[in-house]
Amino acid sequence: MTTTQTYRILEADDIAAYLRERGHADGEHLTVREVSDGNMNRVFIATGPTHSLAVKQALPWVRVAGPSWPMSPSRADAEARAYAQVAAVAPDTIPAILGYDAANYALTMEDMSDLRVLRTVLNEGGSYGDTSRHVGEFVAALSFATSDFGMSSADRKALIAASVSPELCKITEDVVLSEPYIEHEHNHWHPALDDLAAAFRADPLLRTEVADLRHTFMTGAQALLHGDLHTGSIMVGNREGTPVVRVFDPEFSFVGPIGFDLGLYWGNALVSGIRARALGIKGDHADQLALSWQAFETEFRRLWPTRVDTFFDDAYLDRFLRRLWSDSLGFAGAEIIRRIIGFAHLTDLTTLPDPGPASREALLLGRALIVDRDGLAGPEDVRALLEKR
Amino acid sequence: MTTTQTYRILEADDIAAYLRERGHADGEHLTVREVSDGNMNRVFIATGPTHSLAVKQALPWVRVAGPSWPMSPSRADAEARAYAQVAAVAPDTIPAILGYDAANYALTMEDMSDLRVLRTVLNEGGSYGDTSRHVGEFVAALSFATSDFGMSSADRKALIAASVSPELCKITEDVVLSEPYIEHEHNHWHPALDDLAAAFRADPLLRTEVADLRHTFMTGAQALLHGDLHTGSIMVGNREGTPVVRVFDPEFSFVGPIGFDLGLYWGNALVSGIRARALGIKGDHADQLALSWQAFETEFRRLWPTRVDTFFDDAYLDRFLRRLWSDSLGFAGAEIIRRIIGFAHLTDLTTLPDPGPASREALLLGRALIVDRDGLAGPEDVRALLEKR
Repeated sequence: MTTTQTYRILEADDIAAYLRERGHADGEHLTVREVSDGNMNRVFIATGPTHSLAVKQALPWVRVAGPSWPMSPSRADAEARAYAQVAAVAPDTIPAILGYDAANYALTMEDMSDLRVLRTVLNEGGSYGDTSRHVGEFVAALSFATSDFGMSSADRKALIAASVSPELCKITEDVVLSEPYIEHEHNHWHPALDDLAAAFRADPLLRTEVADLRHTFMTGAQALLHGDLHTGSIMVGNREGTPVVRVFDPEFSFVGPIGFDLGLYWGNALVSGIRARALGIKGDHADQLALSWQAFETEFRRLWPTRVDTFFDDAYLDRFLRRLWSDSLGFAGAEIIRRIIGFAHLTDLTTLPDPGPASREALLLGRALIVDRDGLAGPEDVRALLEKR
Repeated sequence: MTTTQTYRILEADDIAAYLRERGHADGEHLTVREVSDGNMNRVFIATGPTHSLAVKQALPWVRVAGPSWPMSPSRADAEARAYAQVAAVAPDTIPAILGYDAANYALTMEDMSDLRVLRTVLNEGGSYGDTSRHVGEFVAALSFATSDFGMSSADRKALIAASVSPELCKITEDVVLSEPYIEHEHNHWHPALDDLAAAFRADPLLRTEVADLRHTFMTGAQALLHGDLHTGSIMVGNREGTPVVRVFDPEFSFVGPIGFDLGLYWGNALVSGIRARALGIKGDHADQLALSWQAFETEFRRLWPTRVDTFFDDAYLDRFLRRLWSDSLGFAGAEIIRRIIGFAHLTDLTTLPDPGPASREALLLGRALIVDRDGLAGPEDVRALLEKR
């Protein structure tokens, strides 16, 4: 090892020594396996006789594409920053973080290989259980703590500056908040949706409303976000009889509009409900928007008396939450649409025997959420919208 | 001179050598005088046989208070950054900048000692001339160029991070956007306003609307602002028969809501109109909000086809400008109120023979602008509001 610290790309054979070096393992024998699953990063699990750890490293490129698609590994800084903020206020909602090695863009964290990705569980017909309450509390805790309500003005400015994330924000600005509404090589869709995809590209009202959401995403520096809070960013399971929920992968984190986090979750939850209905599954899928909103609102209101800036009064809180509700619906709609006619699709729909009808239903719901977002007063209105279809 | 660059506090005797060192003067004899006038910084004018320059240096404290009130001199970085952005798109609206010396927080710039502060001219009964058109164009040029319409997403994120200004933003958040509505030792007012000052502190609607404006100021990262665009931040005059307008002192600059710049100017312009009416001066004072808005809108619309991001369509521009109009009215109202019952008062009103009635009129106008800002459709509605009183 030289005195100059360089960026080391870790391989499975390096992990045991790396963990000892970082003080996360003593002399015990560790068995290491690579379990990289997401598109971007490498994940290793190191298991010893007494405990088990995960090491997640961001590569300087997109893992599944290789060095031909470079991507700054500083996304790992964003991830570590978001975890640190949540750990201070709601540690149980995220994996335990043992340490972040900024020089190597590597997080050492809780082994979650006993848990399963929520989307996979849902696609197999499983239920949400208590997940939406956890998610609502996660968003409330993170967003309150990093808003002008939970953090001093000066600390907030420092957080805004530290958390700018040009590369990953640009992906969202493009892939989520514009490409599906224009002709773009990234877009593709099921042939049964040709007419709707064309109609959405030629829909001036929808385009203007999405532009509005996009500008809110680009300029609304309300709080630190997870930034990619879909049902694939949540692990669920059971440990010793207790349900466990972990929100993970906050590498798209930056200071943005709070409604983006709620909206992404809602978009995915609403589609899981459409899938369940298409398959005739009687479950709790249709309640998840309401449950997560109620948990969010309850937790945010519980935290409100602790705000650092009491010029913001209770009447302002009501107004703030009303706007946040409406923003969240808009982002939910955008998430649904982009996941059906944009770049990356939802397996919730693509794995249906006939994806066409459910995808049409979801697309129309997405559009309604965007263009009617100011007119939908609460979860019961969204439920009515769903049942009308 | 040592090899370690240290922060040198410049005195009048240092300026000639300093300007030669910086390459802004050759061997010619320079006569230097200090003309420091604002609260914060020192300004020197150096005059030689062929040309004349100004040197403005930020001290590590508030000039008029001395070292007992420390203040980061990095406000000069903010000022230089704002000037550089404007110089690229509308150089004629600001003083010519010859150079910025970041190590010493010193700007070398055009000598404006032949010009006069707009507020002084107005207080003496002078007219605006073409100033409001210049101001509208200044705000349009700066805000368009540094918004997501004029700048790439990645460059914008870098600008947001570079331009955070915790210390000066906090002054605005406190002095402009909260203190006047609560009991605070900074507040004072003319005895004839006791009842209104008390009523404003006990006005829940006003408080909630100001909280909304305050949160917009804290989170609305739309474009680089001047940040303190009142009639004391504008110099006017005449050179060789041509009217000259220079917007200066952008040390409160940061990436915030565009309506804050327009609003500050409008608040001050509206009060100058109330002063003129109180004194029976027939002039152009009442037209300035309309003239600056029209100039702003015309220039912003002229620039729109050059936007870097064409996902933002014409219908979105209309919506964006409607919201900006409403934000600007709200900030105008807040500026009026804080300048009458807050910390720093307007000489426009304090120098009237009887400040009471005009100040009452201005306070009520300020409140109406804040609470009715969404209902005032255009400049003619504001004019009607003024004439009704």
